[in-house]
Amino acid sequence: MTLDIQTAGQIDRASFFHPFTSVADLMRDGPTIMVEGQGVRVTDIHGREYLDGMAGLWCVNMGYGHPAITEAIAAQSRKLSYFHAFNSMSTDVAIECAEEVLKRAPVPMARVFFGVSGSDANETQLKLIWYYNNLRGLPKKKKIIARKYGYHGSGVATASLTGLPSMHGLFDLPQGPFLHVSSPHYYRNAPDGVSEREFSRQLAAELEALIAREGADTIAAFFAEPVMGAGGLIAPPEGYFEAIVPILRAHDILLVMDEVVSGFGRLGTYWGSQAIGVEPDLITAAKGITSGYFPMSACLVSPKIWDVIEKGSETAGLFGHGYTYSAHPVGAAAALATMKAIDEQKVVANVAELAPYLHESLKRALGDHAHVGEIRGRGFMVGIELVADRATKAPFKPELRTGRQVLKAAAERGLITRALGDTLVFAPPLVFTRKDIDELVSKFSAAIEAVEPSWLT
Amino acid sequence: MTLDIQTAGQIDRASFFHPFTSVADLMRDGPTIMVEGQGVRVTDIHGREYLDGMAGLWCVNMGYGHPAITEAIAAQSRKLSYFHAFNSMSTDVAIECAEEVLKRAPVPMARVFFGVSGSDANETQLKLIWYYNNLRGLPKKKKIIARKYGYHGSGVATASLTGLPSMHGLFDLPQGPFLHVSSPHYYRNAPDGVSEREFSRQLAAELEALIAREGADTIAAFFAEPVMGAGGLIAPPEGYFEAIVPILRAHDILLVMDEVVSGFGRLGTYWGSQAIGVEPDLITAAKGITSGYFPMSACLVSPKIWDVIEKGSETAGLFGHGYTYSAHPVGAAAALATMKAIDEQKVVANVAELAPYLHESLKRALGDHAHVGEIRGRGFMVGIELVADRATKAPFKPELRTGRQVLKAAAERGLITRALGDTLVFAPPLVFTRKDIDELVSKFSAAIEAVEPSWLT
Repeated sequence: MTLDIQTAGQIDRASFFHPFTSVADLMRDGPTIMVEGQGVRVTDIHGREYLDGMAGLWCVNMGYGHPAITEAIAAQSRKLSYFHAFNSMSTDVAIECAEEVLKRAPVPMARVFFGVSGSDANETQLKLIWYYNNLRGLPKKKKIIARKYGYHGSGVATASLTGLPSMHGLFDLPQGPFLHVSSPHYYRNAPDGVSEREFSRQLAAELEALIAREGADTIAAFFAEPVMGAGGLIAPPEGYFEAIVPILRAHDILLVMDEVVSGFGRLGTYWGSQAIGVEPDLITAAKGITSGYFPMSACLVSPKIWDVIEKGSETAGLFGHGYTYSAHPVGAAAALATMKAIDEQKVVANVAELAPYLHESLKRALGDHAHVGEIRGRGFMVGIELVADRATKAPFKPELRTGRQVLKAAAERGLITRALGDTLVFAPPLVFTRKDIDELVSKFSAAIEAVEPSWLT
Repeated sequence: MTLDIQTAGQIDRASFFHPFTSVADLMRDGPTIMVEGQGVRVTDIHGREYLDGMAGLWCVNMGYGHPAITEAIAAQSRKLSYFHAFNSMSTDVAIECAEEVLKRAPVPMARVFFGVSGSDANETQLKLIWYYNNLRGLPKKKKIIARKYGYHGSGVATASLTGLPSMHGLFDLPQGPFLHVSSPHYYRNAPDGVSEREFSRQLAAELEALIAREGADTIAAFFAEPVMGAGGLIAPPEGYFEAIVPILRAHDILLVMDEVVSGFGRLGTYWGSQAIGVEPDLITAAKGITSGYFPMSACLVSPKIWDVIEKGSETAGLFGHGYTYSAHPVGAAAALATMKAIDEQKVVANVAELAPYLHESLKRALGDHAHVGEIRGRGFMVGIELVADRATKAPFKPELRTGRQVLKAAAERGLITRALGDTLVFAPPLVFTRKDIDELVSKFSAAIEAVEPSWLT
């Protein structure tokens, strides 16, 4: 079966319900259809090549077509194409994978639970937290705190946990015991003249007030990404987690780090938790664990939580939760090959070395631009926020769709970026080289330059 | 990396948090570790071979190591190991896959939304239903009806939709606007002397009363599996859906068929909806779509729903829902190869032909057994409910764990079954032959015979 180039776009529009897409845009402009990928580049159906500045969706960390990963997938698919892990069933590769993930954990972790997406992993964390507090005899301690503009998934509960208005309104969310505190967005939210440290203290005070108001005995956990991704690429201001974590500890509130984007090297440390200096009770991972080649997620569970589950299991009976594809053997093989490649190719060190070059190169090229409000981020996560007025930080009118214009201009120049409103973001494969960064910066600058005249009208 | 046989079980127990497993059982007995699979058989780490009477978890419909599917996975993984479908992005294989799924739909469907598991697909359906009724200007019409012992997933909302007590208690579920009506379990729930048709009428009356009590203007949808799977393998009694569906239609309540197990041939028709004669508004598929080789799910959306979404999209903006791995190109390639193989190998006809033989062979061997209460099901889904007393239908004492004993005895004889309490179930690969059925029945009968003496004590 091969698809006719002429009709591919029509068939797409007539049959394919895209995720996170404006149907009106798709109907008007049609899809961009990718057909091939090698290394840090993908090729569309017309043969146009793109440098992928987003690693797919923050996930193809080892680049496309990595021989060791694709061969591991092919070989395992032939050997054992599927088996499950319900009712004490297991596979050799799932066991190895669990062991290898735990070996790499940033703090000692007791067990790993596998799923297939960051969303299902956070659904697992929520259920696990409630289960744990019931076993501990704390049936009231169930509310979950997350942050505005945090992204934690697309299930009913995980989209509720997520703090994005576009994922709430028409979907009737949030539903459930979820509370949201302010986003640690220094550029947008800090009052004039307030230092990062002082802003962090204010956010900590807000959290403390919320806990006092709700009652610590009703609050179970706090979810956070080390660096917020889909919510606008927001790195924590100085002193943020240092101020937040002791408050959680004081009130017996679990810290869940959502490392779906940051895990496996993206911030220049193996885990984002290490980059921001926290010791989580639960870690959510996905994306980078297989370099996006196979849907897989992992929940890392600390000893204090596992001990309660294990001790309670004789009376609690079956742990009634899981997914058909939990610990899929082909996913486990992909993850094992990916973890091996991460080590052998020293990609975490590559990110640590090149991230400053990425940020500095963008700042050199665009830092003084009249419509660049801020260039921010950490590691291989960078956001460029465009503004109508640099002095007042006034945004462009939404109907201009400035971010989308720049994204399109970049695509025309063979560069993939992502527009989160008017913040353009990059999260390149971790195998990016200095030369790739130069190309990214140069193409992106050209895209900005090309779109700029339209901003003046 | 290869795993040492001696330590594999220890590493499993020390690192791997299994889905749907009793931790106490795992700690006591250790795992069963599978390492290879070919055709309808899998081999464990000790070299013991098993006939897989469960097709993994109702999913490996084409058998293990199917060359066309594994090669499609290998080739696509090399060609384009990942791409996403957010923001109008697409891939050639995702487009083809959407088209091929729609071609096979049991009723005209407008679009297909892809995810990675049955759970996430049902989370999508829930969000889609609420979104649809908001766009229609029916903000109150949001409650969802499902059935006790229905299985619809493991997310917070989908486990709430699920009607299994073991998935509710310690997890604090159900949470949300979910209502449950009685299970259509004729053997267990029908009053003495009541015919199947009369029982169906009673269940329809219960549904109608619930709708009257809650108000039809508050109820959005009804979820059902054509044949209930994990909840005890319960086929609808005669006249059930004929009685239920007109009530839903009369009250503008959407019918969502959960075809995660039944889709792609398991009931001897391409879709379970065809086997039970209903025309759903939404269909959930997963498992069989890739024969379990790659995590993938699909939501099929009818024109009446799609039209509202498309018309509303200019003002609604972005459809803010989706998964990183929605329409994964390797999953799409696996699904395309699977659908082709289903057609070429005529497996749906194989099920239609051999299902009566499967059911009759089990009834011939065990139908008169003093501890077999009922042999039930449809197509390649069969359940054997064991009872302490056949006349009174009295169950065995739970602490005997009779179902589990039989499962273990079957495994010792090289046969995989699944125990849902004391109901042993089979859902073999759709490529099962008459000879495979004979082997299944003979090994299962031997397992029952071996365990039987313990029941007398």
